[in-house]
Amino acid sequence: MKALQYRQVGAPPELVEVPDPEPGPGQVVIKVTAAGVCHSDIAVMAMPADVLPFPLPFTLGHEGAGTVAALGSGVTGLAIGAPVAVYGPWGCGTCAKCAQGKENYCLRAKELGIRPPGLGADGAIAEYMLVDDPRHLVPITGLDPVRTVPLTDAGLTPYHAIKNSLPKLVAGSTAVVIGTGGLGHVAIQLLRAMTPARVIALDISADKLALAEQVGAHETVTSDADAAARVRELTGGHGAEAVFDFVGAPPTTATAGACAAVEGDVTIVGLGGGTVPVGFGSLEYGVSVTAPYWGSRGELIEVLDLARAGAVDVHVETYTLDDAPKAYERLHAGEVVGRAVILPND
Amino acid sequence: MKALQYRQVGAPPELVEVPDPEPGPGQVVIKVTAAGVCHSDIAVMAMPADVLPFPLPFTLGHEGAGTVAALGSGVTGLAIGAPVAVYGPWGCGTCAKCAQGKENYCLRAKELGIRPPGLGADGAIAEYMLVDDPRHLVPITGLDPVRTVPLTDAGLTPYHAIKNSLPKLVAGSTAVVIGTGGLGHVAIQLLRAMTPARVIALDISADKLALAEQVGAHETVTSDADAAARVRELTGGHGAEAVFDFVGAPPTTATAGACAAVEGDVTIVGLGGGTVPVGFGSLEYGVSVTAPYWGSRGELIEVLDLARAGAVDVHVETYTLDDAPKAYERLHAGEVVGRAVILPND
Amino acid sequence: MKALQYRQVGAPPELVEVPDPEPGPGQVVIKVTAAGVCHSDIAVMAMPADVLPFPLPFTLGHEGAGTVAALGSGVTGLAIGAPVAVYGPWGCGTCAKCAQGKENYCLRAKELGIRPPGLGADGAIAEYMLVDDPRHLVPITGLDPVRTVPLTDAGLTPYHAIKNSLPKLVAGSTAVVIGTGGLGHVAIQLLRAMTPARVIALDISADKLALAEQVGAHETVTSDADAAARVRELTGGHGAEAVFDFVGAPPTTATAGACAAVEGDVTIVGLGGGTVPVGFGSLEYGVSVTAPYWGSRGELIEVLDLARAGAVDVHVETYTLDDAPKAYERLHAGEVVGRAVILPND
Amino acid sequence: MKALQYRQVGAPPELVEVPDPEPGPGQVVIKVTAAGVCHSDIAVMAMPADVLPFPLPFTLGHEGAGTVAALGSGVTGLAIGAPVAVYGPWGCGTCAKCAQGKENYCLRAKELGIRPPGLGADGAIAEYMLVDDPRHLVPITGLDPVRTVPLTDAGLTPYHAIKNSLPKLVAGSTAVVIGTGGLGHVAIQLLRAMTPARVIALDISADKLALAEQVGAHETVTSDADAAARVRELTGGHGAEAVFDFVGAPPTTATAGACAAVEGDVTIVGLGGGTVPVGFGSLEYGVSVTAPYWGSRGELIEVLDLARAGAVDVHVETYTLDDAPKAYERLHAGEVVGRAVILPND
Repeated sequence: MKALQYRQVGAPPELVEVPDPEPGPGQVVIKVTAAGVCHSDIAVMAMPADVLPFPLPFTLGHEGAGTVAALGSGVTGLAIGAPVAVYGPWGCGTCAKCAQGKENYCLRAKELGIRPPGLGADGAIAEYMLVDDPRHLVPITGLDPVRTVPLTDAGLTPYHAIKNSLPKLVAGSTAVVIGTGGLGHVAIQLLRAMTPARVIALDISADKLALAEQVGAHETVTSDADAAARVRELTGGHGAEAVFDFVGAPPTTATAGACAAVEGDVTIVGLGGGTVPVGFGSLEYGVSVTAPYWGSRGELIEVLDLARAGAVDVHVETYTLDDAPKAYERLHAGEVVGRAVILPND
Repeated sequence: MKALQYRQVGAPPELVEVPDPEPGPGQVVIKVTAAGVCHSDIAVMAMPADVLPFPLPFTLGHEGAGTVAALGSGVTGLAIGAPVAVYGPWGCGTCAKCAQGKENYCLRAKELGIRPPGLGADGAIAEYMLVDDPRHLVPITGLDPVRTVPLTDAGLTPYHAIKNSLPKLVAGSTAVVIGTGGLGHVAIQLLRAMTPARVIALDISADKLALAEQVGAHETVTSDADAAARVRELTGGHGAEAVFDFVGAPPTTATAGACAAVEGDVTIVGLGGGTVPVGFGSLEYGVSVTAPYWGSRGELIEVLDLARAGAVDVHVETYTLDDAPKAYERLHAGEVVGRAVILPND
Repeated sequence: MKALQYRQVGAPPELVEVPDPEPGPGQVVIKVTAAGVCHSDIAVMAMPADVLPFPLPFTLGHEGAGTVAALGSGVTGLAIGAPVAVYGPWGCGTCAKCAQGKENYCLRAKELGIRPPGLGADGAIAEYMLVDDPRHLVPITGLDPVRTVPLTDAGLTPYHAIKNSLPKLVAGSTAVVIGTGGLGHVAIQLLRAMTPARVIALDISADKLALAEQVGAHETVTSDADAAARVRELTGGHGAEAVFDFVGAPPTTATAGACAAVEGDVTIVGLGGGTVPVGFGSLEYGVSVTAPYWGSRGELIEVLDLARAGAVDVHVETYTLDDAPKAYERLHAGEVVGRAVILPND
Repeated sequence: MKALQYRQVGAPPELVEVPDPEPGPGQVVIKVTAAGVCHSDIAVMAMPADVLPFPLPFTLGHEGAGTVAALGSGVTGLAIGAPVAVYGPWGCGTCAKCAQGKENYCLRAKELGIRPPGLGADGAIAEYMLVDDPRHLVPITGLDPVRTVPLTDAGLTPYHAIKNSLPKLVAGSTAVVIGTGGLGHVAIQLLRAMTPARVIALDISADKLALAEQVGAHETVTSDADAAARVRELTGGHGAEAVFDFVGAPPTTATAGACAAVEGDVTIVGLGGGTVPVGFGSLEYGVSVTAPYWGSRGELIEVLDLARAGAVDVHVETYTLDDAPKAYERLHAGEVVGRAVILPND
């Protein structure tokens, strides 16, 4: 079959012919309908050889959806042809975190060499994909796989972040979303569907702010050095009960910290290398700052239920497998609007 | 191998010779070191044929511990000989509850015909036991399997109940434990280890109240018609922030409801057929009443960690497999002190 | 001034002339703009003398809004003329519950003889109202007092109930509202604003179900003996994660218990005298049943913030103070649409 | 009466004669039995004039206990002579935080010029103390005021910090306490009473580590550059689920961040000027870092209940009011063992 692989440090991804995967005992092979292209792939491919945490080559794509194509021995409860999405942050399945479905925080993955598909293990940008365990598949019956596949990361990651802050997002509260691109524009929709909070969107791009408004932001603010002051103005001086930074670069992390209200939550999701320094007096009293990673199995089920209810809609542009390298080029050039999705079997 | 089976409705359990289990793909066979005998088995064997929810025969024993004896194909991460305990409330592993490790609340177990070992599926009172998935095994390295095996039910069940009420059990609060036998005497130890609450133990037996005091109850009260009034007296009229009823029969459920404080929790664990009626004015304002079932995978890991820390100790009396029928006779006659444990390979 | 008082057990409320209230030290007098008429007043006036928990006469009205008219000595931070709503469930202000703002669960109110205005103390259906402490006033600047005043009970009570169940009302969950009148039609709006849950409304009246749909219910079901089965059908057999019963009479409490999902919450708000019996096997596993009372000071602030955001709208019909007795007559006769509000100074 | 006042920036506190306070309407005067001396007073007195946030002079002492001496008009529910402790972080009493009893996070204190006693308002190191509202007094009947008074800050502050992290401190978890002096040695006792966590204490002083062990720490580690590695070693490589840093200086904040486990909590309590930078990859996944302030009214009630249960004991050394300046000298010189307490009426 054809697969898009990252084969050589620093080189662009390559479309290659590889053997079709065969499911071992307890494993499942899916025929890939749709696979998402993500900024974090770009970040991984930018890492020098001594930093890159996994061996090459591997097939790209940590957002995958398809239909069940073959079952390994011992797998029950899955019908051939059933439409499914892949839960990406694979863990050991048995440690104290995995026992709660938080495989994104698996305590043994590193020790056991377990890696997510598309981030070390072979991923979804191929005709077929090997899934190590049926627990990593979630039914998507009734959903459009193309618009759904980005939810497995670009939906799940903000959902997890928002869910941590739900107790703060009561009536009368304010949520700030910094960076209203791929994850951010989903976050706005999730916040509107899940909470009564007022949503203030920050971005440097007027186009993205227009999208933010269109998907439900109550207010938009240009993300510059005055942004935190503007958020305070909009909140009677108090600041926001929850701030989600999908950029995470030094200028935005400074804004994030500065616009948090007393007892507020700041969540840094973006990989931009910025940090918020937390100590007595560095922020308002009781502000809590965290940098989570992806989400849990239970949360993915909930995100997909939100999609079923029509509460979240991802803007996608689609590519054939042959055009997949072009999708990465456009993403790298900042030309992708919403999310790029590869259709490997079209 | 030899196994203790429930074979005929209304008849006592029978020791029979059955084929040794073989692990299919993804399955595990353990050599049983210790298996607990539980009151709920007696309740199951008292059910008439039209009520009994599972087909006969099956091997008894829903509390099991042993060593890994054989691995089905595709099972990784488990070493032959490793000491393990079995998580009993098996579920589908993929529904919204199972995805959080709450297989005790699996949404699909009934539909898929999944039953716990010893409660429909073949259980632990046998030389070997088939476990359907490695996720149902928890390492017990460093623990005595004989004193540990009852924790998989008699420890996990009260742990789950207590954990639900932890937010209520702040400093200055009171917890009432009704019925200080098998589960109750573990509950007292768990409450003392996990919370700063004052613990009041209720039982009709002076011996059991003496045991309650010995394992940490601050106060003991005879469980009669005046018990709730006595609890109020001991709490300045307010009642208890959490009440755990391990009997669950009509007299104790009445006491349980009557001694709950404003915004308190009442948890009915015992199968005694009693209920607490909840409506406006039937109890103090805001009392919450629930009847949970067993516990989650994550909670079992936590219970075993408590045992490792020396915080909980179960009184056991042991039996060989040949004497297992006698254990049930003694349990039925109310003669077992603490928990009866079968040692099938001794 | 004129006040509507309950003066004699069993007699209708009477419009009488009483002295204008004077604020003592630490107290506040408000000029009443709007006062809500509530079903629970009818319930109180139906109580025989030996059950009625407070002495007569007293001025009716436990929902009040107005402007600050006079400040007792020592009161600071309130301007004459400022628009305010009254937090009704007055407590001692210092016990462990009051210290968290949960005066609705005050541990000392009974002992100290503290009673809510309109329910023992003089209430809001009068030209002026004495408020015992500035902490019982919440600013309503920017809100229409007439549409806002019902939120102090008919909004706060469902808000408190819903807030308890927020952790259950995740994406993909279902909430059932039984009884879509005064409190119920507000509950539907709150659920839609605060959660991503699907809302199923139950009522016996087609008109009220039409209102339920209009204010946001996703589904409506006639509240009869088949209602629970219908809710299960609509939820793939699972039932609802949260059920709010604003009727609380025996037929609806039976429905409420029967339609709750595993680990679901059932909240009985209505005073209809029904109960849900909770014991092992009486409901789905882990269902929690509670009957709360009114709400906390913090929750009232949040409800009013929801109103400010335009998320909740109460249907009101208004009456002058002279016509207040007629409002009670119409309410008693079931003729009030939404909420009756008295305007004592119009 | 005599009072110890901070009168001039940079000068030592002075014992002066001031008029006896008189209670206005709604206020209370207490006769001070015991008043705690705290490191943060030293920090305040070290501030240059342009940083000091309050005008001089004021009476020192933000930890106070005494007996009710005089009631302003309108104050009810308090008996002359009743023993009480003062809740120090005074707020407005009505904002969204104060309505939950979190006056430590009052949203309007700054705007209204409200300051805690001993930190801007006149404090407890005097024969009498004016308390602005009865809600700021908590009964301490049955407790020794001298050993109790430090709990109003040195007990409440760690209690609040620990309470935030209770959901993380399950069975099998680890808590790290950095700095086992005044607040730290109380924190260890609170952790042991409230949670099943293993407690690891870090300090640079062997004496303080000996005290840490004596009050319940399971392990002690010298607080140096290897401390975080040592904590990881003691926790199987995972780190601690909760880290409390009562020093908060750059070396300890680095240790604090480095020893937190996946999804762990880091709480910076000490005023040492250090910070933990939080961003993607800067700490283990999902670590949350916060710097809270003091505690809530409800939490103070709980801390005092813990003291009543004998679960917490503060080491104190006592001084007469005349010797109070000496207490500050000794504290400044690091010579105080445990907590210095002034007895103004001895």
